[in-house]
Amino acid sequence: MSGNTFGSIFKITTFGESHGPALGVTLDGVPAGIELTAEDIQKELDRRKPGQSILTTQRQEADAVEILSGVFENTTTGTPLALLIRNTDQRSRDYGNLAEIFRPGHADYSFFAKYGIRDYRGGGRSSGRETAARVAAGAVAKKLLAKENIMIRACTSAIGGIKAEQFDWDFVEKNPVRTADPEKAEAMAAAIDQARMSLDSIGGMIECRIANVPAGWGEPVFDKLDALLAHAMLSLGAIKGIEFGDGFAAAQVRGSQNNDSPTPEGWGSNHAGGILGGISNGAEIVFKLAVKPTPSIAQEQTTVDKHNQVVKCAIHGRHDPCLCPRMVPVVEAMAAIVLADMMLRNKSSKY
Amino acid sequence: MSGNTFGSIFKITTFGESHGPALGVTLDGVPAGIELTAEDIQKELDRRKPGQSILTTQRQEADAVEILSGVFENTTTGTPLALLIRNTDQRSRDYGNLAEIFRPGHADYSFFAKYGIRDYRGGGRSSGRETAARVAAGAVAKKLLAKENIMIRACTSAIGGIKAEQFDWDFVEKNPVRTADPEKAEAMAAAIDQARMSLDSIGGMIECRIANVPAGWGEPVFDKLDALLAHAMLSLGAIKGIEFGDGFAAAQVRGSQNNDSPTPEGWGSNHAGGILGGISNGAEIVFKLAVKPTPSIAQEQTTVDKHNQVVKCAIHGRHDPCLCPRMVPVVEAMAAIVLADMMLRNKSSKY
Amino acid sequence: MSGNTFGSIFKITTFGESHGPALGVTLDGVPAGIELTAEDIQKELDRRKPGQSILTTQRQEADAVEILSGVFENTTTGTPLALLIRNTDQRSRDYGNLAEIFRPGHADYSFFAKYGIRDYRGGGRSSGRETAARVAAGAVAKKLLAKENIMIRACTSAIGGIKAEQFDWDFVEKNPVRTADPEKAEAMAAAIDQARMSLDSIGGMIECRIANVPAGWGEPVFDKLDALLAHAMLSLGAIKGIEFGDGFAAAQVRGSQNNDSPTPEGWGSNHAGGILGGISNGAEIVFKLAVKPTPSIAQEQTTVDKHNQVVKCAIHGRHDPCLCPRMVPVVEAMAAIVLADMMLRNKSSKY
Amino acid sequence: MSGNTFGSIFKITTFGESHGPALGVTLDGVPAGIELTAEDIQKELDRRKPGQSILTTQRQEADAVEILSGVFENTTTGTPLALLIRNTDQRSRDYGNLAEIFRPGHADYSFFAKYGIRDYRGGGRSSGRETAARVAAGAVAKKLLAKENIMIRACTSAIGGIKAEQFDWDFVEKNPVRTADPEKAEAMAAAIDQARMSLDSIGGMIECRIANVPAGWGEPVFDKLDALLAHAMLSLGAIKGIEFGDGFAAAQVRGSQNNDSPTPEGWGSNHAGGILGGISNGAEIVFKLAVKPTPSIAQEQTTVDKHNQVVKCAIHGRHDPCLCPRMVPVVEAMAAIVLADMMLRNKSSKY
Repeated sequence: MSGNTFGSIFKITTFGESHGPALGVTLDGVPAGIELTAEDIQKELDRRKPGQSILTTQRQEADAVEILSGVFENTTTGTPLALLIRNTDQRSRDYGNLAEIFRPGHADYSFFAKYGIRDYRGGGRSSGRETAARVAAGAVAKKLLAKENIMIRACTSAIGGIKAEQFDWDFVEKNPVRTADPEKAEAMAAAIDQARMSLDSIGGMIECRIANVPAGWGEPVFDKLDALLAHAMLSLGAIKGIEFGDGFAAAQVRGSQNNDSPTPEGWGSNHAGGILGGISNGAEIVFKLAVKPTPSIAQEQTTVDKHNQVVKCAIHGRHDPCLCPRMVPVVEAMAAIVLADMMLRNKSSKY
Repeated sequence: MSGNTFGSIFKITTFGESHGPALGVTLDGVPAGIELTAEDIQKELDRRKPGQSILTTQRQEADAVEILSGVFENTTTGTPLALLIRNTDQRSRDYGNLAEIFRPGHADYSFFAKYGIRDYRGGGRSSGRETAARVAAGAVAKKLLAKENIMIRACTSAIGGIKAEQFDWDFVEKNPVRTADPEKAEAMAAAIDQARMSLDSIGGMIECRIANVPAGWGEPVFDKLDALLAHAMLSLGAIKGIEFGDGFAAAQVRGSQNNDSPTPEGWGSNHAGGILGGISNGAEIVFKLAVKPTPSIAQEQTTVDKHNQVVKCAIHGRHDPCLCPRMVPVVEAMAAIVLADMMLRNKSSKY
Repeated sequence: MSGNTFGSIFKITTFGESHGPALGVTLDGVPAGIELTAEDIQKELDRRKPGQSILTTQRQEADAVEILSGVFENTTTGTPLALLIRNTDQRSRDYGNLAEIFRPGHADYSFFAKYGIRDYRGGGRSSGRETAARVAAGAVAKKLLAKENIMIRACTSAIGGIKAEQFDWDFVEKNPVRTADPEKAEAMAAAIDQARMSLDSIGGMIECRIANVPAGWGEPVFDKLDALLAHAMLSLGAIKGIEFGDGFAAAQVRGSQNNDSPTPEGWGSNHAGGILGGISNGAEIVFKLAVKPTPSIAQEQTTVDKHNQVVKCAIHGRHDPCLCPRMVPVVEAMAAIVLADMMLRNKSSKY
Repeated sequence: MSGNTFGSIFKITTFGESHGPALGVTLDGVPAGIELTAEDIQKELDRRKPGQSILTTQRQEADAVEILSGVFENTTTGTPLALLIRNTDQRSRDYGNLAEIFRPGHADYSFFAKYGIRDYRGGGRSSGRETAARVAAGAVAKKLLAKENIMIRACTSAIGGIKAEQFDWDFVEKNPVRTADPEKAEAMAAAIDQARMSLDSIGGMIECRIANVPAGWGEPVFDKLDALLAHAMLSLGAIKGIEFGDGFAAAQVRGSQNNDSPTPEGWGSNHAGGILGGISNGAEIVFKLAVKPTPSIAQEQTTVDKHNQVVKCAIHGRHDPCLCPRMVPVVEAMAAIVLADMMLRNKSSKY
């Protein structure tokens, strides 16, 4: 049983391979009456698209979206939306030599073990390119959430060992790293460029904060808001960890230090990151993600081929030396999709 | 839309409140032909039940399970199993004074905001007691996985700042902390006891390792194996973070350091924790969890009541000073439930 | 992937075998704030329970329900309800001789083919007794729908070739056949009794009408209201056909005869049975069901056993000579479950 | 919660409006390793496409399908398939005058009541044109089922009161009515043409038979094979009734007449239509459908507009005078989708 659908009421199904004809997504459960144009979606896709700076892949894709259904006179009708993004710059020749080998750090071997066949061109379905469809869907979710004044913001909070220490959200879109710390942006960019020049890649962290979520969203016991956000974020191939609020630091302290108490004016502290018992408590939602270094690197590595023979390989496609900058809008999109769903799910909580 | 069901094919639905008549779970999708007795389930419940040592709550519950359906002549029949655990030691008087207030660090406020009504006795549905039903379900999942030789083991890997440095799995059930490090067990136990004597609680970490999972389990793109495990673990109220393999450490290194390569004899390294592209790769699955300190503490705290008035409160119920020891079997159970589902889901991956 | 869960938001999972310890149901997604007592449920169960008259099975079951969770101070809390019905009059000896044979007209062979094992006592999971859990769940759905003034009524509309020609709904609970036609009740009862005395059984029809459903319930395209009602009704083992409004008669006429037109005062005709394009249109919902004769009959029949040998069999358990009278409340329950779900699903149709 | 997804493992999501840019479907859960080309799909679409004869609508649509994903080197890869069909002959001017009125017998009013907005061009999402996406998906299901030798055949079994009395399956594609009775084909065609010339339409029946389904498919208790087939068929807008095997005739007989008994050579009779207890028993699956007359007719009718004013209307678009001929492949497609899903679901029934 396959897993290309996400969400319960606001429900998306994505499709498409890196080097196939197109990527896309159907969205079922978008309420009627939301104003929506292709530009609303394109704006978010442009934040994710390749070729934005020297810090990202040089693949050229317009990532132009077409709305195929579900919108009439710039308004959603309650019927499913289908959003289509054609692939245009598929240099499959980059990948022909990879048909026989399992790239280190990639899903090649696990896909092959699972299906017995794989579209090896650019990683096929396991390519990061698949996230374009998520960003398109997230743009629709953001439109719905905007009606409730909800604001989702993510940024690169670390590159390698360099960590952001301040959060100037207006700065995020003004620097190619998409960090929120103006004093660290240059060093972060340099670290990425050094990795790139070493024919290598580098890991980092992304932090996401969500403001104005009302208390009461999230469904006990299995579909807790944090459980769904963790599901959404770990469904991104490069994410290796998530923590909410104080996260792993909470494991080192006592209850008297970690408990958040309500006060007549709101929450006095926010160690929990805005979620208690899996339900939003009205405080800001905060989580942090570990992003692994891009597995595709140009330096020579050792692996095996389909015949279990040792081979050397160097990945000469066009790859991001660090995934964080382009993943920032993807993280926001997945958060938006979870929250849109939780908003709609909460509509039947009480009579 | 409520969230008390988990899984796609191996699908569980839990019910029950801390101080209601009973807890339980229905399991739909358990294949016919698995040998199963109440003792198989009871054995796991006994590992989770309260009152095992001074390090855990003193509530006395037999947690005796009854199989109501789905088993005939000690074998599953393919029809749904219902497992029932009666509550017997409900001292609701412990909680009467909490009907009006929102306990710090608890789900009281968020439940109230969501539903407008809550069963305040012992946390109602948000009580950790709810996990008994998960352990019962997990015991069935373990029976299924045992047929595939899969071994799931968890242990307490840290208490406060004291971290395990070795993994002697045979030691886990021989110490009340359920750590795998014989040299740290005493210090860990002491840290818990100190917290308890200070009318406080303490956080910790749990590590889980799963051996013998064949390559190919997990469903791209949204239902990646790590995404589902994260969903399952973050659905436990006290878990604040999860990381797979090197996890957050991977965010600080380069691709050349983090990539795992297959070799003719298997994987040469396991930075990824056994999952690539969301699909098991045949290496050991490894993840770590941050467990927050128990929010219920006996020392006085400040909060507000339903009328938004500031009040003092001290939680005098019977609570675990540290959640880790009793959560170890719960973590194993949830891992087993995810893997059982993934095993069955994988049956239709290829023709 | 098993199928013991029904519904999307108002979601039920049933369990239990005819001669196991108990039957029951969990209901997830019941909104908080609905007044509910065990009596509300018992009342409906009493309509379905065996032994009501000579026209039904003589098995004696109190079918007493216990609410295990989800209700606090006689009000639903938004957490899952579990409803338990213990089996008390299991004469398994009636069935021991049927362990080896496949009864004519029964699910014995198909269950065996599917699972390789079956609980043969009283049909196990395929027993009509399973519907007790549905009736319990339906009683909860009815409480929710009552808040919207929705009224669901079913009756026996034919026994063999004897058809009801008038609908006096007040009469239904006053006669053992549960027909709405006072002039046909006696003949219908006689037909059932004749079948019984011939060691045989007889088929019939049930008609269901639902008043006050607002226009707009039902979800295009696959989850049309009539599609879901058909799914629900055909999930009852004895139902062999369903038709909405004019049903099969509509196949014989022209569009000009079959079209319903809205008028300023409502619908001018109701050939469609209250549903157009899968969505309620505000007119009364009307559907009719074909109920096959009970397959368990006391007269001798020929079949094969597990070794594919021809054998004679006569079914000496306690069986209903006609299923209609006791299925009337079951049909109402399933209709209520569908409508409760559709009501909640419709909450996110528009912003 | 919207309903544009159908199936549990073999899962389809359709999208598209009659006069929007395109229709299509994503299929998730198609196993890897099935040979598939666009021609396999086109062949089925050509059976459904408009303009095949004078008995069908004169709208001209090539209904050319494009496979956007999930197929590599003419073989499915286990990733989702997206199938796209562009609309090319949208004469929206035909519908401009219908923006304000609710057509008799149509979903116009119920859609408006539900969503507060509707794409009125050609019925929008409620158009029969939506079934093109189902046929495309069904073609993929048929490829999967062909590997198991399963054969699904439907035909027009009645037009108005004229009923087929023999089943020559080879004849079905050789006559424009798609009946299987060569002796009735001419009269049926004449009845349709008479309706058309009267500016009217006519109803009919479709019968579907499925051979070679092994015993054991179908899931108790809610997802019985007949329940799922009923769900699938009633999700087609024009279907008003369904019956399995003897169907409504079974309501008039006794158990001794209706029971099917297995014999050493197979089933001795097939009153049940190949399904007992919701599970296939190995006999041929047989069901019949009532198809209402096309609601769009050119003769003048009375209805109301959005302002609840009485208006006259005549529907001058291009419509089928009888839906049966073009629905035959749609019925087969939906049956194939159900069976493909049931085949995959059954894979986890026993260990």
